[in-house]
Amino acid sequence: MRGYKKPTVSIIGASGYSGAELSGMIARHPSVKLENLYAYSQAGNKVSDIYPALNLDMTYRAYEGVPESDICFLALPHGEALKLVPELLDNGKMVIDLSGDFRLKNPAEHLTYYKQEKPADAWMTYAMPELFHDEISQAKAASNPGCYATSIILGLAPVCRPPMSCGTVTSVSCSALSGLSGAGRSAKTELSFSEMNNNIRAYKVGMHQHTPEILQALGTSATSPSFGFAFTPMIAPLTRGIYTVLNISLEKQLPVSEIKEHYRQFYRSAPFVRICSNPPEVLHVAHTNFCDIHVTQSAQDGSLIVITAIDNLVKGAAGQAVQNMNIMLGYDETLGIM
Amino acid sequence: MRGYKKPTVSIIGASGYSGAELSGMIARHPSVKLENLYAYSQAGNKVSDIYPALNLDMTYRAYEGVPESDICFLALPHGEALKLVPELLDNGKMVIDLSGDFRLKNPAEHLTYYKQEKPADAWMTYAMPELFHDEISQAKAASNPGCYATSIILGLAPVCRPPMSCGTVTSVSCSALSGLSGAGRSAKTELSFSEMNNNIRAYKVGMHQHTPEILQALGTSATSPSFGFAFTPMIAPLTRGIYTVLNISLEKQLPVSEIKEHYRQFYRSAPFVRICSNPPEVLHVAHTNFCDIHVTQSAQDGSLIVITAIDNLVKGAAGQAVQNMNIMLGYDETLGIM
Amino acid sequence: MRGYKKPTVSIIGASGYSGAELSGMIARHPSVKLENLYAYSQAGNKVSDIYPALNLDMTYRAYEGVPESDICFLALPHGEALKLVPELLDNGKMVIDLSGDFRLKNPAEHLTYYKQEKPADAWMTYAMPELFHDEISQAKAASNPGCYATSIILGLAPVCRPPMSCGTVTSVSCSALSGLSGAGRSAKTELSFSEMNNNIRAYKVGMHQHTPEILQALGTSATSPSFGFAFTPMIAPLTRGIYTVLNISLEKQLPVSEIKEHYRQFYRSAPFVRICSNPPEVLHVAHTNFCDIHVTQSAQDGSLIVITAIDNLVKGAAGQAVQNMNIMLGYDETLGIM
Amino acid sequence: MRGYKKPTVSIIGASGYSGAELSGMIARHPSVKLENLYAYSQAGNKVSDIYPALNLDMTYRAYEGVPESDICFLALPHGEALKLVPELLDNGKMVIDLSGDFRLKNPAEHLTYYKQEKPADAWMTYAMPELFHDEISQAKAASNPGCYATSIILGLAPVCRPPMSCGTVTSVSCSALSGLSGAGRSAKTELSFSEMNNNIRAYKVGMHQHTPEILQALGTSATSPSFGFAFTPMIAPLTRGIYTVLNISLEKQLPVSEIKEHYRQFYRSAPFVRICSNPPEVLHVAHTNFCDIHVTQSAQDGSLIVITAIDNLVKGAAGQAVQNMNIMLGYDETLGIM
Repeated sequence: MRGYKKPTVSIIGASGYSGAELSGMIARHPSVKLENLYAYSQAGNKVSDIYPALNLDMTYRAYEGVPESDICFLALPHGEALKLVPELLDNGKMVIDLSGDFRLKNPAEHLTYYKQEKPADAWMTYAMPELFHDEISQAKAASNPGCYATSIILGLAPVCRPPMSCGTVTSVSCSALSGLSGAGRSAKTELSFSEMNNNIRAYKVGMHQHTPEILQALGTSATSPSFGFAFTPMIAPLTRGIYTVLNISLEKQLPVSEIKEHYRQFYRSAPFVRICSNPPEVLHVAHTNFCDIHVTQSAQDGSLIVITAIDNLVKGAAGQAVQNMNIMLGYDETLGIM
Repeated sequence: MRGYKKPTVSIIGASGYSGAELSGMIARHPSVKLENLYAYSQAGNKVSDIYPALNLDMTYRAYEGVPESDICFLALPHGEALKLVPELLDNGKMVIDLSGDFRLKNPAEHLTYYKQEKPADAWMTYAMPELFHDEISQAKAASNPGCYATSIILGLAPVCRPPMSCGTVTSVSCSALSGLSGAGRSAKTELSFSEMNNNIRAYKVGMHQHTPEILQALGTSATSPSFGFAFTPMIAPLTRGIYTVLNISLEKQLPVSEIKEHYRQFYRSAPFVRICSNPPEVLHVAHTNFCDIHVTQSAQDGSLIVITAIDNLVKGAAGQAVQNMNIMLGYDETLGIM
Repeated sequence: MRGYKKPTVSIIGASGYSGAELSGMIARHPSVKLENLYAYSQAGNKVSDIYPALNLDMTYRAYEGVPESDICFLALPHGEALKLVPELLDNGKMVIDLSGDFRLKNPAEHLTYYKQEKPADAWMTYAMPELFHDEISQAKAASNPGCYATSIILGLAPVCRPPMSCGTVTSVSCSALSGLSGAGRSAKTELSFSEMNNNIRAYKVGMHQHTPEILQALGTSATSPSFGFAFTPMIAPLTRGIYTVLNISLEKQLPVSEIKEHYRQFYRSAPFVRICSNPPEVLHVAHTNFCDIHVTQSAQDGSLIVITAIDNLVKGAAGQAVQNMNIMLGYDETLGIM
Repeated sequence: MRGYKKPTVSIIGASGYSGAELSGMIARHPSVKLENLYAYSQAGNKVSDIYPALNLDMTYRAYEGVPESDICFLALPHGEALKLVPELLDNGKMVIDLSGDFRLKNPAEHLTYYKQEKPADAWMTYAMPELFHDEISQAKAASNPGCYATSIILGLAPVCRPPMSCGTVTSVSCSALSGLSGAGRSAKTELSFSEMNNNIRAYKVGMHQHTPEILQALGTSATSPSFGFAFTPMIAPLTRGIYTVLNISLEKQLPVSEIKEHYRQFYRSAPFVRICSNPPEVLHVAHTNFCDIHVTQSAQDGSLIVITAIDNLVKGAAGQAVQNMNIMLGYDETLGIM
């Protein structure tokens, strides 16, 4: 490909766990070039001092306005991307934001769940490749799904979104466990090794901020949900991974074999979704971009039990972001990821 | 208490994790005397070689017929207690069995879930102190509840058993995570450190053998349940603990504050149940006989979310067994446990 | 014991990990009464909110001058006890300090290793019961040994202190791993679960502050050591425990069986030291006050290899402190500990 | 490179942890082609059922004689490669053996440490690239170093092998901790999660089978060592990683800065050795082929303390094996590894 110049990439907020995972993936990507890593508290420090395993000979830079790179990933705390994205878009950058800032269409829901006001138009393509591939392929700006949201939406989409061949969902009960890296690289007593080793702790029970995102992606809303929904997030003593159990009540009761087959069909073109005959395991997806899904039912009441597993830093963050970049650039979806 | 002789205790199956926990608790108990520890593969070995932390100067003995002790605990693999218990009872022993052999009244359910035939009368008082204190106090033989079952029944009893002041339960979705000690002290690749560190794995989804026990204790049955029930057990990278999330649909919707108050009233005489204002944590109950319960609801559909935590080896096995012994002997329920 | 009033106990600095362990041990102790728990940042909070597993119905109080209790334990950050102890002693309190403030006789060494000035007389009985039982039994004030120091001194004393039946030690190489609770209950990124899960990290290599304490207790000094000494401390992904490997060169080479026998004799009256025929394990001493010691030698050079294991919060802190209190009060050394 | 056909690779013993790591690395390698995976107990099973994270669509085959592939890796239990390698070499295969079978030149030492007889000529190039690059580049058969041996030899070579600019080593005390994957994918009670979580355990103290390999590579021997050597291996609650502390006594005492500089010079051409200014961490090398080395000294006796960290499955097994293959094939040493 003589004469072809690889698109350049900057990562803004590169020193957190998602940013670091993304840095590694972009650095190894065959068809883009990692140009700059921006960080706040780590500005001026060498990447090799914070993340020696990445083996990157770069220094975190302080962010001082629109970078020269063609593509900007943002992996910032919630609220920060809202400030930076407009200027990036005005300057013609391709933008992929990993925060929650641009996921919700409804500012009222954003206010309720994120406790922040945001403009009505602060919304970008919700970039879940398995559901919105075509929109993503035409987008210049994409909002990367949340980690819990990814594991839950992928488990529910085949029964909640068209074609509705499984009948109407009446309620969903969802329990999900996240590894500690999902809480970020931060100094908090409750996230210390001594407090989390051998421990499990639920939090934000029934009111996690990924809830409206999940319902919106499934074609309904947290404001006026078309089915019952209860979500219990937990942290578990893992570094990486999200493990999700979905118990789904359907209006009509189909043989589970038909539902399994429907899941297989639904994801037949999705390179990173695997329908598994056994319950998934976190170790089976760790350090990969796969979402493993197992479909079965309760022997007592015939309700559907769908279990999913992802790596929260890969499919739940950096991996999905690269997958989205590939789609937006017209590359093969799996480039630099498999 | 001049002239009083402490009742003596033998533990049959003392070298597994539950048996070891029980050995320590009985050895420290102020009002019974640990007499003999029986084991199979470990017979002839010193306790101090297998469990140095117990600091017990005893040797595991091969079981050779009814022991002299007044009280016999059995902590054997399923199926073994069925063979030994009749003779123990014929010889007037007080018996507390920690296996599943005598929990189910319905032999058909036992066959379905344990894959073993058992006689129709192979049933003993189901010894959950918080629900059946009076029956236990008059029993000579007691069947100690399962570990998952304990964490689930205690979370559901206030809404499933009389007084039914919260209205009828229509469905229960249950996800529960167990520490690895629940799988016993065994040599299996899938339980090795390398396979379970950083991992979570569901198993026996929707068909775990504790299911009929749970429904029976709640006044209904697995054969003909009065409400929907779906149970997903998982193993998580902990040594000890069971963490259970119950999502409960009720026919009528009460304010959650009323339901919390009902839980408090329901357990007002239960020394080992704590109704907590925050979600429980495994570390809060580890090495204790407490069951911590948190009651809240989903902001989306108002369904009830009840989260419980126990130590599977204590409240889920040895601790509850000692609690039962105390009740059967007319002692204070908490003796040697607090 | 009609008419006997149990001595009362206050713990100053009760909300850290050592303080919490101590709180539980004192609350369960049969012959003293826990009166007050003092804390700084947690003052005003209920113990049951921070450490539910302790099941203590008490509230942390702000420290406002000499408590009424007969006995005061101090479990404060280094430097704080120096300020409080003089007043406590002036008021006739029995004092046991768990910090490093009063361990070193030589203020110059204290300055070098703790970076703090201290008065020349700021020294209290070095309270390692296995070595200084008689002094402790007559002391009103005692300095509780450090956690690493305990594991190392107990492993070295039989060859470094009289009777010198094994000949002169020429050098000691020491590697020791501590669980994370040794670093305290603090909010630091480098102690977070994500940073320490699956990790090992050496720190303060060759210059840890327990070094002078170790050499002093062994009858020599860091300033002018009579044998070579190199100490590499590490943190490992455990909550509790210290595991220490000591490689000892002796001037003359005795059969290892003789040395083992010497260790057994040396500790024949020590109820909490166990000479083990196999290498110890952290799990064998966790939640106990035991120090397990294994003595063997290298097949290549015949040098002595001594491995020790303790629970850093028990034998390395709270348990040893209670053992010291028992000795100071003339109680059985093991009261409330076994 | 028109017309160029990639060399083909078979892995014999591909279903263990090292074999699986190697399978993934070879499958991703740009310049060789993974042809066949041979296994014993797993023969007939799909790779995706045992190691879903590898995402390899292959089936383990039973070994039935010399494979067609150009290159054969053997990752078999000790003793098995001895039977297969002669035939492979007779058939002109390039062989890289990951077992201990061909590491020792001295059959007597092999017998002592491996408890197996072996022929006097059962020795292949000891393939540690940082020390024996030239020999490896001309070899058709290579013996891949042991995991502990790699971490120890790399830490000692600069002071034990020419140029001896640091003076003569008089003794080495070595403590090393290995993750559990080093014990293989096996069903043993003592390797179960419940037994190893929160635990550390020394084993084979002073007589581990990597000892003669280490001394041989350093130019001396276990039979007649030129310096004192004591090695204490331990297992720690990690899946991956070896963390090694070397305490080295040198005849003359150089400034540590000179020694550090000597280490830097010694490894100036080694792409996978990093001399670090801070103590290494297992997480810094996990999933990489790096050996991180930190050089410092004891403040008490001036002895050298060298700390190294590797990933036992990568630099300690599969990664080093691929590095060796690259060298043997004349490829860039880092191909497919960085």
